[in-house]
Amino acid sequence: MGDSKQFQSELEFVDWLKRRASGRAAGLVAGIGDDAAVIQLQGKRDLLLKTELSIEGVHFLNRLHPARSVGHRALARGLSDIAAMGGRPRLAMVSLALGRHAGRAWVEDFYSGLLALAGRFGVALIGGDTSVVPGATMVDVILAGEAEPGRALLRSGARPGDQIYISGRLGLSALGLEALKHPKGRIASLLPRAEIENALRAHLYPEPRCKLGRYLSRRRLASAAMDISDGLSLDLLRLCGASGVGAKIWEDRIPLPGTSFANKAMKKTCLDFALYGGEDYELLFTVAKKKLARLPRRIRGVEIHHIGEMTAKRGIALVRPDGREEPLKPAGYDHFSFAKKLG
Amino acid sequence: MGDSKQFQSELEFVDWLKRRASGRAAGLVAGIGDDAAVIQLQGKRDLLLKTELSIEGVHFLNRLHPARSVGHRALARGLSDIAAMGGRPRLAMVSLALGRHAGRAWVEDFYSGLLALAGRFGVALIGGDTSVVPGATMVDVILAGEAEPGRALLRSGARPGDQIYISGRLGLSALGLEALKHPKGRIASLLPRAEIENALRAHLYPEPRCKLGRYLSRRRLASAAMDISDGLSLDLLRLCGASGVGAKIWEDRIPLPGTSFANKAMKKTCLDFALYGGEDYELLFTVAKKKLARLPRRIRGVEIHHIGEMTAKRGIALVRPDGREEPLKPAGYDHFSFAKKLG
Repeated sequence: MGDSKQFQSELEFVDWLKRRASGRAAGLVAGIGDDAAVIQLQGKRDLLLKTELSIEGVHFLNRLHPARSVGHRALARGLSDIAAMGGRPRLAMVSLALGRHAGRAWVEDFYSGLLALAGRFGVALIGGDTSVVPGATMVDVILAGEAEPGRALLRSGARPGDQIYISGRLGLSALGLEALKHPKGRIASLLPRAEIENALRAHLYPEPRCKLGRYLSRRRLASAAMDISDGLSLDLLRLCGASGVGAKIWEDRIPLPGTSFANKAMKKTCLDFALYGGEDYELLFTVAKKKLARLPRRIRGVEIHHIGEMTAKRGIALVRPDGREEPLKPAGYDHFSFAKKLG
Repeated sequence: MGDSKQFQSELEFVDWLKRRASGRAAGLVAGIGDDAAVIQLQGKRDLLLKTELSIEGVHFLNRLHPARSVGHRALARGLSDIAAMGGRPRLAMVSLALGRHAGRAWVEDFYSGLLALAGRFGVALIGGDTSVVPGATMVDVILAGEAEPGRALLRSGARPGDQIYISGRLGLSALGLEALKHPKGRIASLLPRAEIENALRAHLYPEPRCKLGRYLSRRRLASAAMDISDGLSLDLLRLCGASGVGAKIWEDRIPLPGTSFANKAMKKTCLDFALYGGEDYELLFTVAKKKLARLPRRIRGVEIHHIGEMTAKRGIALVRPDGREEPLKPAGYDHFSFAKKLG
């Protein structure tokens, strides 16, 4: 293992975690330490459940990602899914297979990052499973949330004519990863330092859009929604598939990760990050035309961008700045061809 | 990878799984394929949540465990926890990190085993996450169940004087694993073939005690309960710890995995399996004296055995057949010292 200080047994680890994750969830009857967590449900709510893997060598690399960031990102992935459903996250469980490099210091930093984010989002850690393994570290985070009955934002509700929006800027995480991998590379040297810092933060400590999702759900503003985790081109295709429609997006409306470009190639790179980069955890959502007047340009502090519209014709068309339409080929992260992304 | 036929993409896998896991859960609004599963909860119920890891090299070995058994056991681990809470299992999610040996045939067999057991227990597979990984295969199964409010069986309710029971026989799984590892070894040759077959079945396809747990919970018969997953000596100590009491168990009351012994050493080995072997997934529960008259000797087809009583004095005492009392040292499976068990 990487550090000299270790947990000597499962019992010692569970005791440490119980003290560390001391936050109590409303209605929690039994948490860490019994056979299963028991939760008293209050009022009439739909239950949201999600599980997200974070794997060393696939979703993070030890040489690039500090343990605190690994913990933050592992939880953020699940929070983002709850956000995309318009739900309120409530409870989390963490299954942790600790690999060679994950000693006690790593575990402590991992939970620091995870629990700090959990605290900010009102999420209680109520259980999990742990094992030491000979190979790579693997994390599975389970999120439970709630939504008002019938209000969860599905991927399947978009209709032709609905307008397409995204929150924040796209490609920031991919840009941040590039800067992390090549701190003295072309990209890091061609963009202003503040933009690089911003991208690094977006990659290491992404901010799930739970407040935005709640806003859209409670006001019934979105006809469909999902989070962008594998790149706009791939995720928009999934939303189109679930809704049985197509889409058209305008290239010059897509908010790029950089704003001041040293040259044309740099702008092209940033567009590629926006279209094909993963892990942005922004929300992609559609709004029926009759509801557009009620949609603010910023929601709960997050800018939103109008980037296209749903069409009856299948497939995704990318409208170039000169008006030409091209089919947008889906490309992004596929978890069945690992190591493409982090390499 | 092990087989030539592979899933070509995440999309292909998810499509296959959606068809395969076609069972609908009552109240399921959105399942596999959206950002999160959405479940409409009916009536007043407490929610039970549990997650259990199954890791190649820790919980199973490719050379010993067929994929069908890996799927069965991965789900059985979680079902057993719901059983130990007296709950009714309802939904499952599966996070699957597919390692080198897990090709398409492996995945299909894995889900065959998992879904066959799920079907028998009325559990719907509603989601999960998947990735291909360079190292070992890792499975995380998440179980959601329900219990009548306030009726969940906790570990913490045992009081001095309560009588200790277990279901079924202990050590069968450890005996089965031994026979699996050494099919021509001493143990396999000294026990009758039928007993070896029985132990192999118990190890590869354990039967979670959900009906028994429901019976105890609905009739308020048990003061405390847990499942025996890491060996009686270790798990009883955990129950004692949670309840703040001690225990005394009678060696000759413990139902051993073998019944006809060729010699004394063989009997000793079987006792060790019963006390220290893991993965029996039987229920350990305590009953207050005033309720003993209501406790049948078989419950829902499963024999139950009276093996001891809770004491005010901390620690566990093992009463030998000659009446001597010895402290029972906890030993069993600790997931922080992997490869001890399967080696």
